[in-house]
Amino acid sequence: MEKTKLAFIGTGVMGSSIISHLLNANYEVTVYTRTKEKAKQLIEKGALWAETAREAAGSSDVIFTMAGYPADVESIYFDELGIFSGSREGQIVIDMTTSSPALAIKIAKEASARKMNSIDAPVSGGDVGAKNGTLSIMCGGEKEIFEKVSPILAIFGKDIVYQGVAGAGQHTKMCNQIAIATNMIGVCEALAYAVKAGLEPETVLKSISSGAAGSWSLSNLAPRILKEDFEPGFYVKHFLKDMNIALEEASNMDLKLPGLELAREMYAQLVEKGYGDKGTQALYKSYQ
Amino acid sequence: MEKTKLAFIGTGVMGSSIISHLLNANYEVTVYTRTKEKAKQLIEKGALWAETAREAAGSSDVIFTMAGYPADVESIYFDELGIFSGSREGQIVIDMTTSSPALAIKIAKEASARKMNSIDAPVSGGDVGAKNGTLSIMCGGEKEIFEKVSPILAIFGKDIVYQGVAGAGQHTKMCNQIAIATNMIGVCEALAYAVKAGLEPETVLKSISSGAAGSWSLSNLAPRILKEDFEPGFYVKHFLKDMNIALEEASNMDLKLPGLELAREMYAQLVEKGYGDKGTQALYKSYQ
Repeated sequence: MEKTKLAFIGTGVMGSSIISHLLNANYEVTVYTRTKEKAKQLIEKGALWAETAREAAGSSDVIFTMAGYPADVESIYFDELGIFSGSREGQIVIDMTTSSPALAIKIAKEASARKMNSIDAPVSGGDVGAKNGTLSIMCGGEKEIFEKVSPILAIFGKDIVYQGVAGAGQHTKMCNQIAIATNMIGVCEALAYAVKAGLEPETVLKSISSGAAGSWSLSNLAPRILKEDFEPGFYVKHFLKDMNIALEEASNMDLKLPGLELAREMYAQLVEKGYGDKGTQALYKSYQ
Repeated sequence: MEKTKLAFIGTGVMGSSIISHLLNANYEVTVYTRTKEKAKQLIEKGALWAETAREAAGSSDVIFTMAGYPADVESIYFDELGIFSGSREGQIVIDMTTSSPALAIKIAKEASARKMNSIDAPVSGGDVGAKNGTLSIMCGGEKEIFEKVSPILAIFGKDIVYQGVAGAGQHTKMCNQIAIATNMIGVCEALAYAVKAGLEPETVLKSISSGAAGSWSLSNLAPRILKEDFEPGFYVKHFLKDMNIALEEASNMDLKLPGLELAREMYAQLVEKGYGDKGTQALYKSYQ
């Protein structure tokens, strides 16, 4: 059997690392992204270039997408020169963008109508996880298809978990973002209190980081905050996008999430103040 | 030199475990608590019984206190039959209650006026940490006195950290509670969303617990919530007390903590609904 041909649309920081892993595993990968310049290094490494999403998808068996916002995803799939316009039966599309569960379901329906298959597979682990090939991948779609593509996902992922029907991967990523959002408030408030009370915040972290107050953010982002390092990590503007998706879905499900609402409001204010391109730990600036 | 004589006032779940460790280390420990019955097992293990806080303290060099609320602490120290009424020069008092920084400072001043010394030393690690002798102990007071009592604290503590002047231990514990409070909201909202979206919440935890959303509460309390196990752990009513102290101190420092305010409001509603004696994970009931 000939080796599965891959396409990868979107060559940002995350996408580029993932594509490198796929190339290293000797897959043929056709790439497309809006600005060809951003794919230059990948092409030098052996990726094939396509002029449109449609062209990239056309020659491939499994098509990955990873963009910034749901509107970008929608355009990659549904535009005149998008994936679906040149689709073939049996192709599998995998959207790895953190995007809306509703859009994942829309893509799954369109794929099904075209006798294609789809998996929504957003990730966590950030640029470091992508680089090291240790991403956590949360998958929604048909289980049989999930099992078929799992060996490919395993090339760049560590915890690859099937979460259920189409959209379930995106819903799971929303759970991830919801847990992070309110926790970031707690981390920032603990530090703001420590500073205001005249404590040495680094010493406070020694007392509180390994117990019941402990969290990934407290261990990894609080020390950056104390060094006034607000570089991303994960962009404020993207986090705000995720919170908006989660709150819209929650509202559709008649679920009130007051903590997430507060976080959204605070992050929206951060963006207004010009911190959209900073890391999520810049929430601390709300307390200064 | 004769071995330091200890007193321990307050023989609740935490106090009892700590006293056991001190007895096992061959210290003479005189105990007092409002209900003698609660000290019975300790007396059988060799603790001496005193009829009042004053009497317990009178015969001791280092006096520990661990009560429920700041009002109890105030009474143990300042009442007619309290510690200060029978104080001797050179005694050291150590309050391990999670209590107000302002009260810690008040005790330190009174101790100083009586040529005694004081340390505020609230702990984290809960009943399990107390039982295993692995409590995190956050200390405020004079550094010299902290160093003097450290070997005794090391009998039941693991991370024993000097945080600064009188009140600094309590302020540090407030940081701990602040970080926990808002994180609990995030944990509950992530689970509530998962359930409402029709996901398998246990499977969601597999995807999100070890990454950037990870926290002690997500790993330890979310599974209990999913089993509908709302037993304490740490009481809702005590947590509410801590949040009230933190918000009062924050207000005195002109610091706005909107996340903590939200948590306080939600926990106050839980107490109103009769969940005061449940564990802090009962916050999940706000979403049901």
